[in-house]
Amino acid sequence: MSQKIIIDTDPGIDDTIAIMTALRSPELEVLGLTSIFGNATTEITTQNALRLVELEGHDSIPVARGCDVPLVMELESIASDVHGRDGMGNTNLPAPKGKTIDKSAVEFIIDTVHACPGEVTLIPVGPLTNIAVALKTDPSIANLIKKIVLMGGAVSVPGNISPVAEANIYHDAHAADIVMQASCPVVMVGLDVTEQVIMTPQFFDELFKAGNPATNLIRRILPVYQDYHDRFLGMGGSIHTHDPSAIAYLINPDLFTTKSVPVFVETERRCKGKTTADWHHQWEKRVETEVCLEVNSSGVLDLIKERLTK
Amino acid sequence: MSQKIIIDTDPGIDDTIAIMTALRSPELEVLGLTSIFGNATTEITTQNALRLVELEGHDSIPVARGCDVPLVMELESIASDVHGRDGMGNTNLPAPKGKTIDKSAVEFIIDTVHACPGEVTLIPVGPLTNIAVALKTDPSIANLIKKIVLMGGAVSVPGNISPVAEANIYHDAHAADIVMQASCPVVMVGLDVTEQVIMTPQFFDELFKAGNPATNLIRRILPVYQDYHDRFLGMGGSIHTHDPSAIAYLINPDLFTTKSVPVFVETERRCKGKTTADWHHQWEKRVETEVCLEVNSSGVLDLIKERLTK
Repeated sequence: MSQKIIIDTDPGIDDTIAIMTALRSPELEVLGLTSIFGNATTEITTQNALRLVELEGHDSIPVARGCDVPLVMELESIASDVHGRDGMGNTNLPAPKGKTIDKSAVEFIIDTVHACPGEVTLIPVGPLTNIAVALKTDPSIANLIKKIVLMGGAVSVPGNISPVAEANIYHDAHAADIVMQASCPVVMVGLDVTEQVIMTPQFFDELFKAGNPATNLIRRILPVYQDYHDRFLGMGGSIHTHDPSAIAYLINPDLFTTKSVPVFVETERRCKGKTTADWHHQWEKRVETEVCLEVNSSGVLDLIKERLTK
Repeated sequence: MSQKIIIDTDPGIDDTIAIMTALRSPELEVLGLTSIFGNATTEITTQNALRLVELEGHDSIPVARGCDVPLVMELESIASDVHGRDGMGNTNLPAPKGKTIDKSAVEFIIDTVHACPGEVTLIPVGPLTNIAVALKTDPSIANLIKKIVLMGGAVSVPGNISPVAEANIYHDAHAADIVMQASCPVVMVGLDVTEQVIMTPQFFDELFKAGNPATNLIRRILPVYQDYHDRFLGMGGSIHTHDPSAIAYLINPDLFTTKSVPVFVETERRCKGKTTADWHHQWEKRVETEVCLEVNSSGVLDLIKERLTK
């Protein structure tokens, strides 16, 4: 039995690797993609989501357009220096053939969860606005969602967009704090593990030998993302594996070590977007998030390579 | 040549271990103790500071009374559950014989720094109010202080008084942020290292064999502090070595690995008292603090034991 999932995404270069891995994994049934701002505007990421389902013949998978701006805060910046102005490494890909469905991302999430109660896992790999709005629009879905596996946050390591905040959480900290209080199981795949999984130039050399549409696209869009990692972190062509790690968790959670802990998100001032684990229960009571703290890096990399090259 | 130091302190059980270690170290010339609130009120910690200089015949060392309340925030709590209501493990020690000098802590710091320009190291092991007020009262001292070696903060590990904040910084976050911007060299001996240095019941068994006034006093006051570490952290009689680690740093900095980085202190909301290292210079320019990140734990413990038992 495959797991029914909705990927909420802002493609995005690592989103692309994640989505193509998911679409090529028999354990996962992708019910739809919902778009969000972050790596580019929602306008752009929606077009990219359509391109990605079309790339290897998954045109029947619905794409629903998500929110354009965060819940409370202003849309502060778009990561065009990380993912390119088009979210796809400045490759100016041709327009997709297909269109989004008539439902919004929020409606699609709510309706899909109700249609398959207890069966749908949400995989947000961008800012959490759509998920938070869906939970506020129809609170009854909280108990019908099987699980939320999100890429975002950092509880034991510094942030990336600020010294304390990971970018997805930072871009809508209020939404993130709502999701951390959801009554369904929430798994946080944050920088604590994604920065431990490093795709090297050698990894990509092997990946690109496959020469299929997925690896050919990754090859085209990758350089801007490598440049960013090199400029900011001196990684010399290697990249951190953010969004694809969430997909790897879904396929094989045994690759990760987790601990359950209340997680709080600061929404103001310098620490905006910081995810704090309250290990000793010093703050008020809150449901616990299952936070990934350790990862079998080579296991994750092998899994992704196997899926993208087969 | 011994180093001239002023210990700014809120004794305090670990302060007691630190001060007795300093007084027994020929490398250090203790020019005075200045008192501050934190582990108890300033009223109480001042009395304890007097008791400590008298314990082994150091009565000639001046004790100057410090500020009673933080710079901006309210005095939130006193750590009577950690150090006892009297700051000395509820041992109700007899009153000291001596008195504080006529100068306030701030005046004493300013005058002493001017009297020995470039020679005085300040060792704050409590909230940083006195130091910040001294720097604001007479900004010229910033370039005359040899170094500030402070116990406080946490850049790579969770806090202790809150999930993000170490207690000394938390109790006067505004003062701490001022000290982090001082133009003299500042070394931060925080939870990053002090929680790695663990005094076990076996360590204390050996220490107490010395049977001198210092170890006898530590033996009396210790149980409340051990109880706290056990209740909060399940440490079974062991304790973290906070304030004494700052003294060990002074005597032998080679026991520590440090990195220089701008450090910012949040003063409001949940993250109040959090010390953030801006490793990638994402926030505004600020002078760098030398942050202790690794420590030779057994080296620190051996040094303290040697000093207290000789």
